[in-house]
Amino acid sequence: MTLPTTETLLLDKRDHALFITLNRPKARNAMSLQMVHELMATFEAIALNPDIRAVVLRGTEGHFCAGGDIKDMANARGQLAAKKAAGVDPFFELNREFGRLITMVNQAQQVVVAVLEGAVLGGGFGLACVSDVAIAAADAQFGLPETGLGIPPAQIAPFVVARIGLTQARRLALLGARFTGLEAKSLGIVHEVGETSEAIESLLQTTLAQVKRCAPGANATTKKLMLAVGQTPLESLLDEAAKDFSAAVSSQEGQEGTMAFIQKRKPAWAAIVGTETPVATAK
Amino acid sequence: MTLPTTETLLLDKRDHALFITLNRPKARNAMSLQMVHELMATFEAIALNPDIRAVVLRGTEGHFCAGGDIKDMANARGQLAAKKAAGVDPFFELNREFGRLITMVNQAQQVVVAVLEGAVLGGGFGLACVSDVAIAAADAQFGLPETGLGIPPAQIAPFVVARIGLTQARRLALLGARFTGLEAKSLGIVHEVGETSEAIESLLQTTLAQVKRCAPGANATTKKLMLAVGQTPLESLLDEAAKDFSAAVSSQEGQEGTMAFIQKRKPAWAAIVGTETPVATAK
Amino acid sequence: MTLPTTETLLLDKRDHALFITLNRPKARNAMSLQMVHELMATFEAIALNPDIRAVVLRGTEGHFCAGGDIKDMANARGQLAAKKAAGVDPFFELNREFGRLITMVNQAQQVVVAVLEGAVLGGGFGLACVSDVAIAAADAQFGLPETGLGIPPAQIAPFVVARIGLTQARRLALLGARFTGLEAKSLGIVHEVGETSEAIESLLQTTLAQVKRCAPGANATTKKLMLAVGQTPLESLLDEAAKDFSAAVSSQEGQEGTMAFIQKRKPAWAAIVGTETPVATAK
Repeated sequence: MTLPTTETLLLDKRDHALFITLNRPKARNAMSLQMVHELMATFEAIALNPDIRAVVLRGTEGHFCAGGDIKDMANARGQLAAKKAAGVDPFFELNREFGRLITMVNQAQQVVVAVLEGAVLGGGFGLACVSDVAIAAADAQFGLPETGLGIPPAQIAPFVVARIGLTQARRLALLGARFTGLEAKSLGIVHEVGETSEAIESLLQTTLAQVKRCAPGANATTKKLMLAVGQTPLESLLDEAAKDFSAAVSSQEGQEGTMAFIQKRKPAWAAIVGTETPVATAK
Repeated sequence: MTLPTTETLLLDKRDHALFITLNRPKARNAMSLQMVHELMATFEAIALNPDIRAVVLRGTEGHFCAGGDIKDMANARGQLAAKKAAGVDPFFELNREFGRLITMVNQAQQVVVAVLEGAVLGGGFGLACVSDVAIAAADAQFGLPETGLGIPPAQIAPFVVARIGLTQARRLALLGARFTGLEAKSLGIVHEVGETSEAIESLLQTTLAQVKRCAPGANATTKKLMLAVGQTPLESLLDEAAKDFSAAVSSQEGQEGTMAFIQKRKPAWAAIVGTETPVATAK
Repeated sequence: MTLPTTETLLLDKRDHALFITLNRPKARNAMSLQMVHELMATFEAIALNPDIRAVVLRGTEGHFCAGGDIKDMANARGQLAAKKAAGVDPFFELNREFGRLITMVNQAQQVVVAVLEGAVLGGGFGLACVSDVAIAAADAQFGLPETGLGIPPAQIAPFVVARIGLTQARRLALLGARFTGLEAKSLGIVHEVGETSEAIESLLQTTLAQVKRCAPGANATTKKLMLAVGQTPLESLLDEAAKDFSAAVSSQEGQEGTMAFIQKRKPAWAAIVGTETPVATAK
């Protein structure tokens, strides 16, 4: 596996996890178009790579991501006349590209763990909403400030509804609400909250250890099935699931799992491949 | 904008909000067919009116709404033979019309705030389930009593599932459960609970102030996008959202929002248009 | 009504409820293919029987159900070559049949009450996820251990998402999480938790008494409508609901309900048909 060269991201493979750190600290890691593209290139590079079983997404210097980048908006505005003449809408493209990124992260075969500290706003909030496990600092600042600026949280809105349901989503978006990590947990946006850096690291390590016990192929299949609920008619989905089950049982992974169970030992995928326990970057 | 003349509703425009008060206190504001039609006429009158950015729904004399009106049922029964001969089912029509009302309220471009006190039963419960922000008295009495009377909560059931999910909805409906405002919050039916009238008024004023900070057009677009989740395939919805984003950025509202942000001032839509802070009617 | 003869289940009709007790205590009531078929035969036998208005599902000797049965898996493996030659995939069939069972239980016209003690794992967890009312022991052990064995929780995954939403479901499945009845309540998997056997029995009796107050036909219609949300377009569903409403009002049940309401008496369906209050089996 070759990881892409990135300017806006720090990439660090540790044991079975790839740590991706958003690294534009002066802009509180605001999501530039370049960052969008580098994230997509990274997720493409690790797709179908069974060595990477977890992805940890976090930000440098105490912030996750403060939203979209204003400079990209200014650029799009500058190119508006020229691009429109060429039949391209630069605002459409800029916005839609971010939606492609979160769709890709949502469907990643790895377990995506988000560590949410400081600003988790707009696009950062949207990215948090597609993680499989979300761990927040109790005092992290969540929010959907878009409508206060006269624009809708366009690509984000559908993922917020999928995350916490229509009832809470409509209120948060229509009031431009701000709230803490603690409230994010009670709203069901995040799964766990840590009061201190140490508590957050401990939650992260526990999560990564739990991922390690689960077979990567079985996890990828399970995630695919769960994401299909509501998209595929139930009976078809159950047929597909039974095919997946049969294939899994006959696979090397399924045979190793059964064997390990009978022999009362850990399956191969749960073995320690490095000496270190996973520790977090970027703090 | 001309508001309709109404017998069963009190209408009062204050600042950016229209206060609609259900006003049939002798029947604990039971939802008569006349009230259904007057509510529809009112929401029609304010549709696309950017001056009205919030609608506050509440009831007179300490009750929100005790359900459907029995007299309408008796009327429908009386007309049954004649109407059936003419090919019309009066029970179908009576029931379906209520569903048309809650569909309309659900999709209103304004932020709909429900203030839920006393009885919030049957159709009143259904109406509460389509609000964007629901504020309940801690001791409000919620319930779905229909199946105890031998009839299903027909038009209401789908909106209860959309509100709180299948798992809680099926239990509440199949047990004919009664519960308080406090429990309604833990079930996710309402967003906020006030122990006293003063607390409820304060929550309402805070909500209306938050609505004011958000651009009306951006809010309407956001609500439309959120309501389309699960109705429109995700990729199409994200395409639509990107078009909406582009239109919003180029709109007067989007330009004012950007300008205000750069100039570090409040955008025009957030300016105080009246001298008074919004206060509640009907207590 | 004739109940089937069963080896893996204890069946006991009390008042308006059928108590079904999973009875393979040596295997902590693991779900064998025989048990799947006996459960299906039992639900078929009571379908459309208005005397049975509630079904209580629980397990013998302190466990609900520890998951799928390993012997069935070994059998399927043994028959693999022969069956595949005949064009049949025994793993597919074994898995899919369990999905047919939970689909059937999900759609049962009765109110299905699950009493969840001890092990509630894998397939047992899936079965719990289709109950209308779930009552758990505080110390019950819930979990989705499948991916730790190298296989996906295939037929179960869609029902877990329907039960608690994608956000919690993806984390639980991808981490192979284990958790208690108390946590199951906070995750929204179960509705009520009892600390002691007495508390659990009391919750069960209260639930059965509540079911009794609700009309069986109206309950069956309500459940059907709620399960159709997300499967049927909303406008069609509201049309269907209005037809159901009209039919219910004109039915014997609807007329009895109205009459009882006017005469301030209990409707016929709420009358006590036995002398005993319902008590639980199998403890």
